[in-house]
Amino acid sequence: MIDTQQHSDGIVELRLNRPPVNAINPDLVMALQAAMDQAEADGARALILSGRPGLFSAGLDVPELLTLDEVGMRDFWKDFFGLLARLARSPIPIVAALTGHSPAGGTVLALFADYRVQAQGNFRLGLNEVQVGLVVPPVIHQALVRLIGNYRAERHLVAGQMIPVEEALDLGLIDELAPPDQAVEQALAWCQRHLAMPAHAMLATRQLCRADLAGLFDDPEALDLDAFVHGWFEPATQKTLKALVDRLKQPG
Amino acid sequence: MIDTQQHSDGIVELRLNRPPVNAINPDLVMALQAAMDQAEADGARALILSGRPGLFSAGLDVPELLTLDEVGMRDFWKDFFGLLARLARSPIPIVAALTGHSPAGGTVLALFADYRVQAQGNFRLGLNEVQVGLVVPPVIHQALVRLIGNYRAERHLVAGQMIPVEEALDLGLIDELAPPDQAVEQALAWCQRHLAMPAHAMLATRQLCRADLAGLFDDPEALDLDAFVHGWFEPATQKTLKALVDRLKQPG
Amino acid sequence: MIDTQQHSDGIVELRLNRPPVNAINPDLVMALQAAMDQAEADGARALILSGRPGLFSAGLDVPELLTLDEVGMRDFWKDFFGLLARLARSPIPIVAALTGHSPAGGTVLALFADYRVQAQGNFRLGLNEVQVGLVVPPVIHQALVRLIGNYRAERHLVAGQMIPVEEALDLGLIDELAPPDQAVEQALAWCQRHLAMPAHAMLATRQLCRADLAGLFDDPEALDLDAFVHGWFEPATQKTLKALVDRLKQPG
Repeated sequence: MIDTQQHSDGIVELRLNRPPVNAINPDLVMALQAAMDQAEADGARALILSGRPGLFSAGLDVPELLTLDEVGMRDFWKDFFGLLARLARSPIPIVAALTGHSPAGGTVLALFADYRVQAQGNFRLGLNEVQVGLVVPPVIHQALVRLIGNYRAERHLVAGQMIPVEEALDLGLIDELAPPDQAVEQALAWCQRHLAMPAHAMLATRQLCRADLAGLFDDPEALDLDAFVHGWFEPATQKTLKALVDRLKQPG
Repeated sequence: MIDTQQHSDGIVELRLNRPPVNAINPDLVMALQAAMDQAEADGARALILSGRPGLFSAGLDVPELLTLDEVGMRDFWKDFFGLLARLARSPIPIVAALTGHSPAGGTVLALFADYRVQAQGNFRLGLNEVQVGLVVPPVIHQALVRLIGNYRAERHLVAGQMIPVEEALDLGLIDELAPPDQAVEQALAWCQRHLAMPAHAMLATRQLCRADLAGLFDDPEALDLDAFVHGWFEPATQKTLKALVDRLKQPG
Repeated sequence: MIDTQQHSDGIVELRLNRPPVNAINPDLVMALQAAMDQAEADGARALILSGRPGLFSAGLDVPELLTLDEVGMRDFWKDFFGLLARLARSPIPIVAALTGHSPAGGTVLALFADYRVQAQGNFRLGLNEVQVGLVVPPVIHQALVRLIGNYRAERHLVAGQMIPVEEALDLGLIDELAPPDQAVEQALAWCQRHLAMPAHAMLATRQLCRADLAGLFDDPEALDLDAFVHGWFEPATQKTLKALVDRLKQPG
């Protein structure tokens, strides 16, 4: 599910590879954590998280998640939060190379990276959870606030829309655009520039600056897991999600 | 003092109508609260707060407020903070349609709405309290910080100037400009877009994102009512305010 | 080390004058504090902090600081934090007129002023501490967050680069550009505009808006003095700093 590629300077690319759309299910969450652990154990100095050309990730695998009962859903979210905490607390820099579309859960992963390079093109991303009847958990709201500010986060989340990449750049949801096939290359260049700095100072400064992001996960109670799982199983939410899945099943 | 107009989709417009300049006095504060209560009781799904063409509100009714004694002034501010809290805690979205000039108190009302549409033209708005010898209460400072950031709030408040609408857009004090007679129409379009989302998710996300704004009013002590009332009656402030009223009384 | 010049309206300019590069050493820190105290005692209504044409300050005097032992270094940082606290808590407005280059420590001083005017030209500034193996103390990180936001502060600090003045303007690190010989004049104009406001309201509003900046110094423990001094004497940092000094000594 994760293809690992070694680049120069100890930079390791972890490419999401769960056809057809890199949808995030329990297995992908565990595989990505394991790949991060392995890369760091092997001495990686920076990570790039990428997808396939034209698609980083379609977000959560709603059809599969709808088959889970309340215990299963709770376990999934605990693991998904664990992955986000792993990204937020990473001891080495992580760049998200958004190689194409990256809605909802795809955008969420990128929020917790150090930096976001987005492939140019007719792609969309954004936290459109409201549109499918979901309320983002507080920790994801806070990560967005940290990135783009309190009020812009409110407007983006309440609107519930995916947005074009140029708009995402203006909003601060991504940091730079790349020609469609150059997102990984530009992510590599970012890593190389930062790895050229004195490592002890770069890493300690990074830790200082990201302490608030890592700190979001310090209190497990604050994750409000129960509220999200409860919301998932509310009749109105289930109805909206099932309608979404029915639309996905329709041909073309 | 408030004209209520039903639009489609359960959107209710509350139009300030206290000639000649929609100045905010104790009666207007009570009338606006009552109109909000009534609209919600009647099932409104979103509110638009508007003024007359060319003027949203001239701000506080300083000539009338100068006739109040310390008890009267304290009561007024308690009610005015009550109105701001009502806006901040509104269970349904509120758009401010700034139909023209909107200095000081007019801008303050708009700060606590969800969104601000400003009529284009030679209009001015902004928190120019310093210019008339006043210090904005902490809760208004905090609402501005939330909207435009800490440092930009400092620069805007300390400068004490009203600014043109284009500058207000750049600053983030307003969200969009409209042709002079289209502010309400654009506010309606914003409401319609948001009411088209699954209501439970849109409203709960809105509550999550605005919890910090609503929370400003949780501790009545933090409103620092005494300090503001004390400042109002300081000789230097009274002198500046009376000079302002004298200028307003001069012809032309 | 500090040239004091009286301008009109009670505005006092304090010009750094420690040839050749206005490097910040223990004596300069004490001299600047003393000059601020004197100006205020003499009734100054606003201060301008300037340098010489083409150079505001080259930052900390690393060659001299490297001769200090741990006690001496601790004393220096205590005094330097004292100066930053003095700037943050100043009862009157302070404008930094950045008359040229202003890297690292030069930028740090400016962070705690009310406003920053930068001379145009091929000048550079920024918090490039990482590049020389240092980690900025938390209080400087927080002052930067306050000015430009959480995420932009992270990116700027971790990158460890000095940036051109136009980029600094986009980032919010400075507030306006001036023709090379007009930085002090534009700083004067800013002071005059603000001194034209009712003083009691302008000063009290300034205090309200800057309370968070002043508050950074309320808890001496939070300054984390020991961590910074410890970091300074780590072998990797000392090696990077000594290599820097060797480069500075080379001709041309």
